[in-house]
Amino acid sequence: MSSPTDRPTGRPRTIDPDAVSLVALRLFNEQGFDTVSMDDVAIAAEVSRRSLFRLFPSKAALVWAGIDEFATRFTAALDARPASETSDAALRAAYRIAATFPDAAVEVTRRRFRVIAANPTLEHIGDPTIARLASRIVEFVADRDGAQITSLGVAVRARILASAASAALAWWAQHGTGRPEDAVDAALKLVPDLR
Amino acid sequence: MSSPTDRPTGRPRTIDPDAVSLVALRLFNEQGFDTVSMDDVAIAAEVSRRSLFRLFPSKAALVWAGIDEFATRFTAALDARPASETSDAALRAAYRIAATFPDAAVEVTRRRFRVIAANPTLEHIGDPTIARLASRIVEFVADRDGAQITSLGVAVRARILASAASAALAWWAQHGTGRPEDAVDAALKLVPDLR
Repeated sequence: MSSPTDRPTGRPRTIDPDAVSLVALRLFNEQGFDTVSMDDVAIAAEVSRRSLFRLFPSKAALVWAGIDEFATRFTAALDARPASETSDAALRAAYRIAATFPDAAVEVTRRRFRVIAANPTLEHIGDPTIARLASRIVEFVADRDGAQITSLGVAVRARILASAASAALAWWAQHGTGRPEDAVDAALKLVPDLR
Repeated sequence: MSSPTDRPTGRPRTIDPDAVSLVALRLFNEQGFDTVSMDDVAIAAEVSRRSLFRLFPSKAALVWAGIDEFATRFTAALDARPASETSDAALRAAYRIAATFPDAAVEVTRRRFRVIAANPTLEHIGDPTIARLASRIVEFVADRDGAQITSLGVAVRARILASAASAALAWWAQHGTGRPEDAVDAALKLVPDLR
């Protein structure tokens, strides 16, 4: 995952977006999201302002960069679950898979969630992706359970495991010492199969 | 719940904030939250601009006016639960009680949730009250369950029933024909006792 830069003399030819994101998240954690500017990020990451904006249109994009990969893993996992499985079992498996971040992404993921926890306005910015995921889950649950998409049961079943997984990731970022997927797994085990 | 107005000739002496809120919510539902101005609300509600701003500092305040009453009922109910009850049982009871809106508030509550569903940015604005409630729930669960406030189990148990109740209220506003507390009750019954 690299892209060509405008390459000022002596700078490397490619920029690793994850590395830039990590530098930014460290600054946000240490100095506060609101006080750090895109210029500060560019200087700390040793990239040009132009390259930075090409990769990340905003400070929020630096924080949320990982959510798309989570959503992609989640959706692929859901699509791959056997049709015989209940929505409950399939969702549990998909959350575990989605929360299995690659080794190289674990620290950056922890920092993303910490910055989001410290800046609740950021939560809102992830909404388009999260809203798409939420609709996909409602459709999946209705389809698997043979229930009306507008039924209360579907609305509830689509939300419960999502909230357990989300609580687990937020908890892991603050207090967890292990892997994010293990925290999600432990959280899902606290929720009995839904009626 | 009434307050003195600046009383232009022929206007009533007192203004009912709930009635003003209802007029505003109807406008937001029919014309869209973004297109309706505070001036439009003042004209439709037949109050002066000054009186309107004194009661509601913003359009968002017109939408969120009911959340404080929900939070007050919820917190009072939680405080009143017998110490012998598990956190799970106490939270279920408190959500049911909080969702029991007075008859006169049912229509306005439905409209609040509809406007919020149509304008996700509004969800964010309720955050301070919701964030306070969320902290209160975490403390309550840790205390009742004799668990560390920073444990994963507390984080999960504090979130699951909240998400079921919140899904139920959102569902009820869109699809429910009965009372909000019955939708919350039905949703909570779909979630087995947490481990």
